[in-house]
Amino acid sequence: MKNSQEKSPGDFYKKSTLEPETQLEYALAGKITPEMKTAAVEEPHLEPVDVREAIAKGEMVIPASKKHIQQGINPPAIGRQAKTKINANLGTSDVSSCLAEEKEKLKTAIQSGADTVMDLSTGGDLDKIRKTMIEEVSVPVGTVPVYSMIVDRSVEEIDRKIILDELEKQARQGVDFFTVHAGLLFSHLDLAKNRLAGIVSRGGSLIARWMKAHGRENPFYENFSDICEIMRKYDITLSLGDGLRPGAQADASDRAQFAELEVLGELTERAWTQGVQVLVEGPGHVPFDQIENNMKKQQEICHGAPFYVLGPLVSDIFPGYDHITGAIGATAAAYHGASLLCYVTPSEHLGLPEAEDVKEGCIAHKIAAHSADIARGIPHSREADDAISRARREMDWKKQFKHCFDAERAQELKGREIQDSREELEDYCSMCGKDWCAVKINSEL
Amino acid sequence: MKNSQEKSPGDFYKKSTLEPETQLEYALAGKITPEMKTAAVEEPHLEPVDVREAIAKGEMVIPASKKHIQQGINPPAIGRQAKTKINANLGTSDVSSCLAEEKEKLKTAIQSGADTVMDLSTGGDLDKIRKTMIEEVSVPVGTVPVYSMIVDRSVEEIDRKIILDELEKQARQGVDFFTVHAGLLFSHLDLAKNRLAGIVSRGGSLIARWMKAHGRENPFYENFSDICEIMRKYDITLSLGDGLRPGAQADASDRAQFAELEVLGELTERAWTQGVQVLVEGPGHVPFDQIENNMKKQQEICHGAPFYVLGPLVSDIFPGYDHITGAIGATAAAYHGASLLCYVTPSEHLGLPEAEDVKEGCIAHKIAAHSADIARGIPHSREADDAISRARREMDWKKQFKHCFDAERAQELKGREIQDSREELEDYCSMCGKDWCAVKINSEL
Repeated sequence: MKNSQEKSPGDFYKKSTLEPETQLEYALAGKITPEMKTAAVEEPHLEPVDVREAIAKGEMVIPASKKHIQQGINPPAIGRQAKTKINANLGTSDVSSCLAEEKEKLKTAIQSGADTVMDLSTGGDLDKIRKTMIEEVSVPVGTVPVYSMIVDRSVEEIDRKIILDELEKQARQGVDFFTVHAGLLFSHLDLAKNRLAGIVSRGGSLIARWMKAHGRENPFYENFSDICEIMRKYDITLSLGDGLRPGAQADASDRAQFAELEVLGELTERAWTQGVQVLVEGPGHVPFDQIENNMKKQQEICHGAPFYVLGPLVSDIFPGYDHITGAIGATAAAYHGASLLCYVTPSEHLGLPEAEDVKEGCIAHKIAAHSADIARGIPHSREADDAISRARREMDWKKQFKHCFDAERAQELKGREIQDSREELEDYCSMCGKDWCAVKINSEL
Repeated sequence: MKNSQEKSPGDFYKKSTLEPETQLEYALAGKITPEMKTAAVEEPHLEPVDVREAIAKGEMVIPASKKHIQQGINPPAIGRQAKTKINANLGTSDVSSCLAEEKEKLKTAIQSGADTVMDLSTGGDLDKIRKTMIEEVSVPVGTVPVYSMIVDRSVEEIDRKIILDELEKQARQGVDFFTVHAGLLFSHLDLAKNRLAGIVSRGGSLIARWMKAHGRENPFYENFSDICEIMRKYDITLSLGDGLRPGAQADASDRAQFAELEVLGELTERAWTQGVQVLVEGPGHVPFDQIENNMKKQQEICHGAPFYVLGPLVSDIFPGYDHITGAIGATAAAYHGASLLCYVTPSEHLGLPEAEDVKEGCIAHKIAAHSADIARGIPHSREADDAISRARREMDWKKQFKHCFDAERAQELKGREIQDSREELEDYCSMCGKDWCAVKINSEL
């Protein structure tokens, strides 16, 4: 993956005398952890030593905090050598919050293939929701801690103590990865002024407001070393937020986006200096032709640290179908450089997702991840595809359903047809009818 | 588009002394037809003369038969210089046929953005269904005439007379384009033998059966000049079927597929010799990384004749969601070389689509077409995207809905939320709630 001029955590790491605290530090020390072994089980083409090596290069992370490991977690490996992973964003808002509903959505997300989840709650009892989510699942749970820093206070009141206290609290609760918008600098605000959609990241807009109010640099940037120290202690993976991610086709690949990306590259190095595992977040809304360049730029600037993208959406005019618009961009992103795909649901831009939206969002992005893995030539990734194709040729419906990603949905559509035609499951479908089936004719040839 | 060594219809056309019959012949004669003007209206960046030139180069077609023009048609221009178009496959089978239902699906397809439709009926009163469809719509209607040739007879009984009679009959009914599987040759059958999925094209499998039974060459290939003569007379666009299109990831880009493509290139030249407009059909199931090469190969071998693809599906394991799997491949295809995207619906591989599936299939492929147009830099294609993004920044929900492709669906999802929270349409959504909205904060900055 890397050529000899490229840099990796070992070039920056400064703490070689201390006892390892993080997966990265273990990897740099040449040690294979139980989590590396667990993660390797899900990657039939990787041995634990491959996982260790990729982590040591900074090209892979295992977001599993020490606290969540104690509570039981089955963490995935996220990085280019591994299969592409997907994340589901969940959580309440002040106009829609219900713990039971969140638990249902969480269950749906896991069943629909989410490899990680984020609790983005901003309404209700945030601590309770967060703790429940961590207890309920064995996949990594991420948060954007700035959200809970402004409960009962305005964003302007945030200071160093509030930041570090909140991080420490959430760390103790067992969060596995934090999105921290430390790369959005005061000097960037002017660059975003002439954008069509402006700043669309919630965390980014809050920090922008703080900087405007105080006329000072981003406090997450200013306190970055202390933030990393907490994250190292609990082995929480840093997800470098992109507060200036484009929110419209028109704003993609602009100076604001890439100026922040440069800082994310610097912060990747700094976090590695302290032994912290790093993910880097990316767009957003990006025209299809710009995705390849976006992915390559990030991989270069951030030395191959796993890229975690939101879609990207390749058009802006399809509210209600943004899971599809997102899956299109996500496939190209995963093919060209991303490792973790944050889902977009049909309710994006319109409201919080309900359980059905969560399912649709997860599956659309699972399609993206899986299709990109086939295209990237990840070993074994086409096995189920070949098996279902063989079953199709054999007209074996049961075997087809066995290899479907969502057998229930497929059976439902096939069943609808059986009901219509009052026929049992036979060796044909309503598409070609009894005598017209290409597969049947083919098998006779 | 073409470099000087590349060939176009003018290099092949042999009938310069006759009166023009087809859009291609008018274009070659330097004449602008009313259909070229109509088609140009829908392409704000093209003048009628641009349409004429692109048709003369063989890079664009207007599928509008003389008969359908008499009945009223509003035909689109299909080709790389124009916006990407989408096609919806409709039609009955022997286990599911109902004219009223087909009419409903037809209406849904047009409302959901289908630029062309194909009647693939194989059950019920085929002539009645076909004539009804042509009467009902002002978009081009295509068929696969071999289907109706085997009603009440076995495929082996097909001969020259049956072929030409059926084509003549459908031509008189006003069909605008015919899929003819003339490129699948006897010598290709061996190449498809070791495929995982074999021959999955219905037309292809029927012709393969004919060739096996008779031990002779494909009768559509053998009678190609006479077929073209009928098509010229009515100005029916030839859509060169790909009987060997891959039906599984494993079979993509194999010798069988590309051997047939070479023949499609030859047939493109031969059809141009006779003044017939040509579309070329393509896959199917293709891994994401192979799509670019597939598109470029077709454009080269077929001298830039518009490429009409089915998806392609970038994975095989998502029955129930193949509209998404297809839209992903279709976006890449349209970006790299295709001009017409045949939709895939959620019921693909499971049964005939119902009206709701038709809608989902159309919109998914409209997303693909539109996103590719933005990526290709088709002038004006981003205007609605910019308008909706501006409306988002202004938090103007009414204007957002105005620029949505499916405003009804977007309003339904937004309305669901309003109902949940007992709120009126306000300047926030349930996603961020009242105080958290990035857009709102952004507007204050």
